[in-house]
Amino acid sequence: MTAEYAQRLTRVPQSFIREILQVTLDPSVISFAGGLPNAATFPVTELAEATQKVYQSQGKGALQYSTTRGLPELRQHIATDLKQRSGLDVTADDILITSGSQQGLDLIGKVFLNRDDPVAMERPGYLGAIQALSVYEPNLMAIPLDEQGLEVQALDLMLNHAAPKLLYTVPSYQNPSGISYSEARRREVADRLKNEDIVLIEDDPYGQLRYDGDEPTLLKSLLPDKTVLLGSFSKTVAPGLRLGWICAERDILDKLALVKQATDLHTSTLNQQILLQYLTDNNLDSHLQQVKAVYRQQRDTMIDALECYFPKDVHFTRPQGGMFLWITLPQGVSSLELFGLAIKEKVAFVPGTPFYVDGGGENCLRLNFSNADPNRIDQGIRILSECLVRIGQDGNTTTELY
Amino acid sequence: MTAEYAQRLTRVPQSFIREILQVTLDPSVISFAGGLPNAATFPVTELAEATQKVYQSQGKGALQYSTTRGLPELRQHIATDLKQRSGLDVTADDILITSGSQQGLDLIGKVFLNRDDPVAMERPGYLGAIQALSVYEPNLMAIPLDEQGLEVQALDLMLNHAAPKLLYTVPSYQNPSGISYSEARRREVADRLKNEDIVLIEDDPYGQLRYDGDEPTLLKSLLPDKTVLLGSFSKTVAPGLRLGWICAERDILDKLALVKQATDLHTSTLNQQILLQYLTDNNLDSHLQQVKAVYRQQRDTMIDALECYFPKDVHFTRPQGGMFLWITLPQGVSSLELFGLAIKEKVAFVPGTPFYVDGGGENCLRLNFSNADPNRIDQGIRILSECLVRIGQDGNTTTELY
Repeated sequence: MTAEYAQRLTRVPQSFIREILQVTLDPSVISFAGGLPNAATFPVTELAEATQKVYQSQGKGALQYSTTRGLPELRQHIATDLKQRSGLDVTADDILITSGSQQGLDLIGKVFLNRDDPVAMERPGYLGAIQALSVYEPNLMAIPLDEQGLEVQALDLMLNHAAPKLLYTVPSYQNPSGISYSEARRREVADRLKNEDIVLIEDDPYGQLRYDGDEPTLLKSLLPDKTVLLGSFSKTVAPGLRLGWICAERDILDKLALVKQATDLHTSTLNQQILLQYLTDNNLDSHLQQVKAVYRQQRDTMIDALECYFPKDVHFTRPQGGMFLWITLPQGVSSLELFGLAIKEKVAFVPGTPFYVDGGGENCLRLNFSNADPNRIDQGIRILSECLVRIGQDGNTTTELY
Repeated sequence: MTAEYAQRLTRVPQSFIREILQVTLDPSVISFAGGLPNAATFPVTELAEATQKVYQSQGKGALQYSTTRGLPELRQHIATDLKQRSGLDVTADDILITSGSQQGLDLIGKVFLNRDDPVAMERPGYLGAIQALSVYEPNLMAIPLDEQGLEVQALDLMLNHAAPKLLYTVPSYQNPSGISYSEARRREVADRLKNEDIVLIEDDPYGQLRYDGDEPTLLKSLLPDKTVLLGSFSKTVAPGLRLGWICAERDILDKLALVKQATDLHTSTLNQQILLQYLTDNNLDSHLQQVKAVYRQQRDTMIDALECYFPKDVHFTRPQGGMFLWITLPQGVSSLELFGLAIKEKVAFVPGTPFYVDGGGENCLRLNFSNADPNRIDQGIRILSECLVRIGQDGNTTTELY
C-alpha cells in the first residue's frame, strides 16, 4: 500500500449486520439478524417466465446499454402505481431507477452533502443509511422515536438549534424498530417541516408489507416539494434483482441522474426489462397478499413466543408491517452479552448499538421475523429467553433483574 | 427546492456523450458517438439458456440478497482467467465484483480521494473517469499521450512537481484515442512509478478486443502492489448485465468492499449467476473470436473510408484493438462546428474537448467503430468528409486549410 486512504473512511462504520451475515450463512443457525425476505415467497416461476419473454421479445436490446434514468415504461409503471396507491400526482419523469434503494441513499449523499453538514435521522435508525450517508461525512444527529413516530418536541429542538439539511426517515414499519408513524404524527412532522429549509428523505421499502392497521399516508403526499421518496422491489418482488427507485422534484431528480451516471451509468437493462415484464403479466397485489400472509403469521408467532417465554420486564414493539421488531431489555442488561450467549446456541440477532449514531441502545436488539419459518421462530425465541435467564444467573451486573 | 446542493456538483461535468446518445436514439442517425458494442455480437441464445439453467438450478437463491464482494465462484473464474491470460498470481480473494467497471471508478474515488487531492490521468482521457472521480473533487491533471502511451517526460514532471495520489490509465486500446501503450512504454511507466507513493489505476475494458499486434502486458503484472486493475464484461459479453470487477491488493480490496456495501450492498445476484453459468457452459475465447472478426472489419472499413474520403492533413490513429479511433483536424478547424454540420446530415460523433480536463482538443474528435455496420461506416465517413469540406467553403476562420 502506497497511498493514504480518504478521510471519509474513518467515518464509515463496518456493518455489524453484514459481519453477522457471515455467521448466519451456516444453515443450522436460526437467524433473526439480517433483513432478508423469506425466499420461499419469491415468484420464481413468474420471474423465469418473464425473463424468457424478455429474451424472446427484446433479445439484444435487453443486453445493451440503456438510459441513466431507467426504462421509460418501468418508470411509468411505478408512477402509475404510486398514483393509485397514494394519490401522488407523478409521472415517469418524476422517477429515477436505482440499483436497489440503498443506491438511492448514496446518490442523495452525493447530491446534497458537504462535509459536516447537519443531517438528522431517527434513533434508532437504519444502519444502511448511516453507512451510505457517512461516506459524505455529514454531522449525523438523531431524533428519538416513540411508538407514534419522531418525537415532535425533539424534532422542534433539532430544527431550531441544528438546522439539519436533510431529515432521513422510515415512517412505515421502520427499520430497526418496527414502529409506524401514526397519521397524526405524520401530519405534525409535515407541519413542523413545511417552513424549514430542509429535504425530507422518506425511505419506504416496507410500505406495501402491511399486516394490520390502515394504509399509511406518505409524507411525500403531505410535503410533495420537500420530500425525496425512495422505493424498492427488494421486499415486494426479489432483492437479488437490485431494483429500487427515487421519486423527487424535477430539479433534484436531474441532479440525482447526473451523479447516477457518474456512479454506474445505469441500472441493469436486463433486470429492468424482467421486472417490467413481470409487473405487466402479473398482479403484484395478489402476490403481496401471499407474501403478507406468510409474514403476518411469522410476526404473530414471534410475538406469541415473546409473550410466552420472555420475562415481563422486557419490552417489545408490535409492528403492523415490515420485517422487524425491537426489543428493549431492562436497563443494564447488555444485548451484546446476550448475543455472545445466543450465538453459541446458534441463534443470531443484531444488538442495538449500531443503530445509534450518538451512543445508546446497549440494552436493545433488533429481531427480524421475515426470514425464518414459525417453528424456527418459536424455537429461536425460546433459546433467546433461556440465554437471557443465564445472563442473570451468571452473576453479572444485571443479576438484580432476574 | 429548499436545500442547497453539495459543492461537488459544480465539479461533475454533464456527459456530452450521454446528451448525444439522446440524439442518436433516432435509428436514422449514423452514430460514431457512443461507446456501444454492436448488439449483433451479443450471445443472446447462450445467455437465455444460461438464465434458464440458473432459474432451474438456483431458483430462489439467485433472487436473494448475496455477499458484497460477489459470488465466490464467479470471482474464482475471473481470477483463474486472469492468471491464464496475464500470469497474475491472484485468487478469488483478490477480486471484487462491481456493477459495471464504471462503479469501480466511483468506489476508488470513495476510498482514496479527499478534496483537492492531485490525480493524474491521460490527455485525452476517458470521460466516464473524469465524471466518476470529479464527484470526489480531486485536482485532476493530465499527462499527454503519444502513440506509444503516456509521455514519459511529462510523467516525470508531474511526479516531481504535483505528486499525484492516483494515476488513472487505459493502457490498452485507450478510450478515447484508440492508442495502446507499447511494451517499452509500459516498462518505462512502471519503472517511473515503482518508487513513488502512488496508486496506479489500470482500466482494462478493451484488453480482450485485440485485432492486431501482440498481447499487451498488464501494468498490474509489472507493478502488482501499486496497481488497481479494473475489468468489465460489458465489451466481452453484454453491457446490459452491468458486471465488472476490481483486482487489487487485499487491504485496498477490503476498503473497496466496505464502501461497495455502503453504495449498493452488492451487485445483482441473478446477473452474477447468469454470467457464471454462461462462462461455465461456453468458451469465451471462441465468442471473442467472432466479436473481434466483426470489429476488425468495422475498424478496417473506417480506416479505409478515412483514407479514401478525408483530406491528407487530417491525422487519425490506427487502433490495434478496442472500439475507438481519434481524429486530429488541422489546427484551427473546430470539431464542434463539424459536429453541428454533421448532425444535420444525421451523423454523430463526440467532439474532443470533453476529454481534456485542462482545456484543448478543439480540433479533435472521437469516432466509435464498434456500433455501426461497414456500409453505414463508409457512408457516415463520406458524409463527415463532405461536412469538413463545407467548413472551409463557408468562409469561416479555417478557410485557408481547404
